[in-house]
Parts: sequence; C-alpha cells; structure tokens
Amino acid sequence: MSTIPVTEGPVDPAARPVEPPAGITDPRLARQIAFLLEIDQLKSVLRQSHLIDLSRRENDAEHSWHLAMLAVVLGEYAAVEVNQGRVIRMLLIHDLVEVYAGDTFLYDTQAAAGQAEREHAAADRLFPQLPGDQADELRALWDEFEARRTPDARFARALDRVQPLLLNFYTGGSTWRPHGVTRADVLAHQKTIEDGSPALWEYVRIMIDEAVRRRYLLA
Amino acid sequence: MSTIPVTEGPVDPAARPVEPPAGITDPRLARQIAFLLEIDQLKSVLRQSHLIDLSRRENDAEHSWHLAMLAVVLGEYAAVEVNQGRVIRMLLIHDLVEVYAGDTFLYDTQAAAGQAEREHAAADRLFPQLPGDQADELRALWDEFEARRTPDARFARALDRVQPLLLNFYTGGSTWRPHGVTRADVLAHQKTIEDGSPALWEYVRIMIDEAVRRRYLLA
Repeated sequence: MSTIPVTEGPVDPAARPVEPPAGITDPRLARQIAFLLEIDQLKSVLRQSHLIDLSRRENDAEHSWHLAMLAVVLGEYAAVEVNQGRVIRMLLIHDLVEVYAGDTFLYDTQAAAGQAEREHAAADRLFPQLPGDQADELRALWDEFEARRTPDARFARALDRVQPLLLNFYTGGSTWRPHGVTRADVLAHQKTIEDGSPALWEYVRIMIDEAVRRRYLLA
Repeated sequence: MSTIPVTEGPVDPAARPVEPPAGITDPRLARQIAFLLEIDQLKSVLRQSHLIDLSRRENDAEHSWHLAMLAVVLGEYAAVEVNQGRVIRMLLIHDLVEVYAGDTFLYDTQAAAGQAEREHAAADRLFPQLPGDQADELRALWDEFEARRTPDARFARALDRVQPLLLNFYTGGSTWRPHGVTRADVLAHQKTIEDGSPALWEYVRIMIDEAVRRRYLLA
C-alpha cells in the first residue's frame, strides 16, 4: 500500500448512509455501536470559545475531552472529596444532548430561555437509543449534572465554567471582547465555581481582575 | 450585552502570547494550568479518519473523547474485568505525546519506523511540565498503555483499534480506499483487538468481510 499521506479534500459523499454489516446478530452490541456513531455528531457542534492558538472555534467533543483532562489534573481542588471516575464520566457525557439541542452560549440570555426544555427533549430522544440499563444509567448521570446538588456534579459544573474562562483569558478575551462581555456577566457564575472548588475560584477571581486591567473584559 | 452570535472569522492574533495573571502565587496550580493550556494543541493534530458525516478529518482530541465514550458504553466486552476509570484515563491521555510527535497513520509502515522514539522523546518533554507526582502518575499510565501487558492496557488498545475501523466502515471506507488498504493490512491488527476483547473482534471480523464485499477494502 501507499505511504503517501492523503491530504484534506472532498470525500465521495455517495457512500452515505452506510448500512451496518449483515451478520451482526447481537442486538445489544448493534444498538451500542449505533449510539456511538450517532454521538459522532458532537464533533460538529461549535462552541463560542476559540482554541488557544486562535485558529478556529472549539467544538463540543474537544471541549468534553479537555474538561475530562481538567478533572484528571485538577481533582485535588474539589470542595469536598469527589469520585473522580464519576466526575470524568459526567463530563464526557454532559454535552451529548447538544447533538440535537445545539450549543447555547453562556452569556446569551435570550437563547438561555428555552435551553432547559430543548435539552430535556434531546435527552429523551438520545439516551433511549442505548440498551435500557445503559440508557437509565447515563440519563441519571446527566440529570445529576443538571441538578448540581451532589459533590460530583458541583465539581464537574465548576470545571465546565472554568475551562472556557481559561480559553478566553489565554486568548486575550477572544470571545469576551466581540460579545462585549462584562465583569458582572462573568461574576454571575461565581457561585457555580466557588461551590465546586473554592481554590479554583480564587484563581479565576485573580484572572478576572487582570482581564479587566488588560481590557479583555469590560469593567 | 449582545445576543448576536459571533460567526467564524479571523481573530486578532496580536494578543498572543498571553502571560498568566500576576498575583497567582500557587506554583503548583500555575504549572497544572500551563499544562492544560499546552495540551490544547491536541485539538489541532489531525488523524487520517473522517467524521461520520464526511465533513472533514478527525483530530486527536475528538478521537480521545470518542474512545473514552467507547470505554463507557462497551466496557462489558473487555476480555477480563478491567478498571473502567483507569481505562478511561489511559484513553484520555494516550495521544497527548502527539502534540509534539504528530499522528502516525497506522498503515504507514515508513513513518512507523521512528514512531516509538519520537513519542518517547515527546513524553520526556511533555509530562515533566506537570508537578512531579502527577508527571510520574501520567507517565506511568502512558507507559502501561504503550507496553500493552495489563488487562486495562489491552482493552484500551483494542478500543483504540476499533474506533477508526468503525469510522472507516461507516463512511464507506473513506480512509481505506484512497490509501489502498487491504484486508491483510487490517487483519494484521487482529491480535490487538482480540486480546483486549474477543466479542469486539467478532464484530470487527464480520465488518471486515462485509467491507471487502462492498469494496470499501481491497481483498
């Protein structure tokens, strides 16, 4: 075979949609694989954050991976002891519903209005594509994240707030500036971060002050 | 503030590089944050696989997230009982070295020659950017994945082989066809999958036969 790398370019779209191979007789595994192919769409849901190198916007799959890495590296800063494995699984799945509901920008108050309804409808459609036991398990984990009451959910939500703040600060306010985001907009999420991790809130508090001084963020 | 979404477009690159906020006095946390910003580059390392919708090639961060989701959904098919949390962490970090070493296409025998050396040099450079205890912990986890001897590593490696096969089959052989990949090329990785998961190998075996019948893959 050739060792010449294939470059970017149009791919023959005629092959879609692709039927599963005949001969797969395990319906459970077939459903699980179909679910894993369905959530591939998360790679195409764009967020408002930019990559650190400013080359483009981040998508939900990348964001979910990055959050899971925050949980791996910053676990020691949770407000109370958490189950790291559960926090990571929660973060891996927390945005899955956006394959149907789309991403809602944190500071877009208008879009936020119908967000909960859209996302619950998406969850009702997505999770039952898994076998029943797994549908229940992942739905319960997602509900727990949404309800933000358990220590695991509170820490996971804090990380979900911290990651875009880091991307924003370390790109010179690349999302804050064009949207005219203010210090007060960001401070409105103080409680979510502080509840899950007082230590990370301390970092963010200093970062926000500096962002205002550098004019990444409106005063 | 505005609720109008900001569209794709050039971002002012003058803001780079961004210095950390003055006033951060915790050197451990500062190192951890710097590491998390450094690995943001994984989002820009392109693989040969295409997304299921064929819109573009997949990157390493998306691949790592997708693999972690395979571990969440397909854990029951491990050859022997594994520690799911460890498997997931292993998969989240398994490609980190590619921020320096780049991605090596599985079927590119020429590039594979220097791959181990390149990746070990990258690991020597990347992991020590973390505080010592975490550098040791993540390096050990990466070494374990590379050595493919423990049950956790074997299952993780099987999933790392299965995911691109799924993307390939369900895009009509979008990477196999232009590279002229043969059935024998794919079967060369049978042992890696079968060792980690006989049940997933059974699925893949049927899928490969069907791929040849449909001419996604050369006989």
